[in-house]
Amino acid sequence: MTSRSAGFLLSQFVAGPACCGDRAAGYCPIMARSKQTESIESIINERVTDETEIKEINRILYGGSLGKIDIDHVATRFWHHKLNIEAYKFDCPEEQLRRPRLVRVGIIQNSIRVPTDAPVTRQMQSLHEWIGIILDAAGAANVNIVCMQEAWTMPFAFCTREKVPWCEFAESAQDGPTTNFLKPYAAKYNVVVVSPILERDSIHCDTIWNTAVVIDNHGRYMGKSRKNHIPRVGDFNESTYYMESQIGHPVFDTEFGKIAINICYGRHHPMNWLMYALNGAEIVFNPSATVDTLSETMWPIEARNAAIANSYYTCAINRVGSEQFPNEFTSGDGKSAHKTFGHFYGSSYITAPDGRRTPGLSRTREGLLIAEIDLNLCRQSRDHFGFAMTQRLDMYARKFNDACNENFSPQVITQPSDIQQN
Amino acid sequence: MTSRSAGFLLSQFVAGPACCGDRAAGYCPIMARSKQTESIESIINERVTDETEIKEINRILYGGSLGKIDIDHVATRFWHHKLNIEAYKFDCPEEQLRRPRLVRVGIIQNSIRVPTDAPVTRQMQSLHEWIGIILDAAGAANVNIVCMQEAWTMPFAFCTREKVPWCEFAESAQDGPTTNFLKPYAAKYNVVVVSPILERDSIHCDTIWNTAVVIDNHGRYMGKSRKNHIPRVGDFNESTYYMESQIGHPVFDTEFGKIAINICYGRHHPMNWLMYALNGAEIVFNPSATVDTLSETMWPIEARNAAIANSYYTCAINRVGSEQFPNEFTSGDGKSAHKTFGHFYGSSYITAPDGRRTPGLSRTREGLLIAEIDLNLCRQSRDHFGFAMTQRLDMYARKFNDACNENFSPQVITQPSDIQQN
Repeated sequence: MTSRSAGFLLSQFVAGPACCGDRAAGYCPIMARSKQTESIESIINERVTDETEIKEINRILYGGSLGKIDIDHVATRFWHHKLNIEAYKFDCPEEQLRRPRLVRVGIIQNSIRVPTDAPVTRQMQSLHEWIGIILDAAGAANVNIVCMQEAWTMPFAFCTREKVPWCEFAESAQDGPTTNFLKPYAAKYNVVVVSPILERDSIHCDTIWNTAVVIDNHGRYMGKSRKNHIPRVGDFNESTYYMESQIGHPVFDTEFGKIAINICYGRHHPMNWLMYALNGAEIVFNPSATVDTLSETMWPIEARNAAIANSYYTCAINRVGSEQFPNEFTSGDGKSAHKTFGHFYGSSYITAPDGRRTPGLSRTREGLLIAEIDLNLCRQSRDHFGFAMTQRLDMYARKFNDACNENFSPQVITQPSDIQQN
Repeated sequence: MTSRSAGFLLSQFVAGPACCGDRAAGYCPIMARSKQTESIESIINERVTDETEIKEINRILYGGSLGKIDIDHVATRFWHHKLNIEAYKFDCPEEQLRRPRLVRVGIIQNSIRVPTDAPVTRQMQSLHEWIGIILDAAGAANVNIVCMQEAWTMPFAFCTREKVPWCEFAESAQDGPTTNFLKPYAAKYNVVVVSPILERDSIHCDTIWNTAVVIDNHGRYMGKSRKNHIPRVGDFNESTYYMESQIGHPVFDTEFGKIAINICYGRHHPMNWLMYALNGAEIVFNPSATVDTLSETMWPIEARNAAIANSYYTCAINRVGSEQFPNEFTSGDGKSAHKTFGHFYGSSYITAPDGRRTPGLSRTREGLLIAEIDLNLCRQSRDHFGFAMTQRLDMYARKFNDACNENFSPQVITQPSDIQQN
């Protein structure tokens, strides 16, 4: 196996300045070199020019047009890194008794940096270095809480179902190399860092978990959350590596608000989202890795629905680009063996509790998406829409308990018998 | 109070043929006379002409382009009624052991027909007559199951909080004038009719309920479902008229599949949607009445998310146009008293269990949306995505039960104390 055969696609990254001309940190033209669509936003922005129509599309598709934060100095400083930075602001009415609780949230979507057959250490270090640069940008933009994509220290190798060398990427949540790498960044920039990694739990039989580590803004390990729902869908058959979390739905009470992490496939499960709300979350991150053919039609729906239903902010993060692996694997779909996973379509976005959302980041390029939010909007949305108040949690707790029983009898009404009068 | 002062807006209805020219049953130009946007689909269809771009927008926004059903003969026959009819087909892979279970679903969005200060009987009769015509169209198009909008026999008068004369629209579910009116249509066209009405329950102290009646395809009363979650949001303060349903989440095992009805505000509650799935629903109707300023940004999200999360079809139905009432009312938003509710934006749509959806009906015109679906796709989607299998229902039943307790202690991780080592 030569390293060439395991090369990875840089096109979506190289495409940045080469075709963008002087549009610093702006959108690329519609079709990137990889022949992947840049984004539907880029198509619509290009083709719809009437102001009234643009406003209506934004209103219906995104809940309105958001203001922008001025981060030009950051975009300029990091321009040579070809990093796409977008920054929006969700406005929120002022209250009399509470002051605004403004927080800048940053989410990062990126690609791997070296081929997947490079030594494990080199693969991980190359990602540490790259994310370190993006964290410098987030720090310069005064981001308060930042979250990376799922299993950000590695390629998303679970499609291979091979254990070697991928299990070697697993590390201690509390004091592994990645957590230790991030602590100084958290302290330096006064930023809470959410770091989704592959965890090795040496205290419990060396088990592996899909985990998100939370480091507080003083650079201290705060705790961890684990993936609650494990997919068994085609290449996303991760059940061969780790099990469902048994540590619940922790909410982290940070200096910048109460946050939680719903990892990847958990976004398909409305009860998972709800449980974080019941534990008090104001922002829920959804670090993910998912490809176009599997999930792209669901992507704009699920994290946004969760924000609406639970009156909190959600941040949906997906990796971007393609990853090619050294050995062939099959996908459980009757097709031939192959070495690539498909296109990770990025499109990371942030939704407010009232359903407004940012445009998505690019489908083809790496990026940092920043939103300035006011946490007061969570309670305001709850007061306005009343979804929590009208939830009837007690009824559903009982009904779900009934439905778990082997002898559960669904509530079904059948047709009247023929002799019954019309 | 003269009938002029309580006139209702016909513009969105009259606009049909006047500005559509020879586009039978097709889209109107982008801005209807009411100055309301016709739909974002109409804008995009007008402005984006490149085939590749259209395909990408359809793929990302709707999960792909759907085939159309030929209902030209119906459109022609009902053209003089100025009824917009759209008909799509969701394809579905064939199986070896089960034959396709093809069903044609029809959903109706309409406006009221006479001013809201007309006699109750006249208001109701005018709607009976109009829906009778649309049922004739649905029958001619071989629809198997049809559902009307919420409280279809009346204006959505709950904003007024007045009891007179609105409570007089309430009628018996089993043998009230509306159910009796619909039974012959159901039998004649071999169609299951879902009829959301205001119900008067004379057996239980004359209470009023927000109810959906199901009439089977032989014209027999099959049963009823009631609204499980009652809004208290601005003009949607329906809690002065009726309470939350106590009759559960019934699923109706009809000859054309297992159906359920999640009425209006229940669409904001993921657990409500889930409960219908646990009871075996394959199609869930969401008859609604909602206006642009309140909910339009959430509308394309919630019923679609429910289809994805629960692996069933959902049909979101909204009324269309504006309704003006005889007396002033306030909306609990600090604004002056007024007589109109806002714009009911229609935009009814149907979603498949894999997340694909139809374009929405018009935001301004009445219409009948038909989709040919294969119920086999429900189980296929469950097998493919595994959402039910990975649901962990037992865990959530326990956790929700805990969360109901007054002494519930949320799972919160606080920052480490300052003396703890980094």
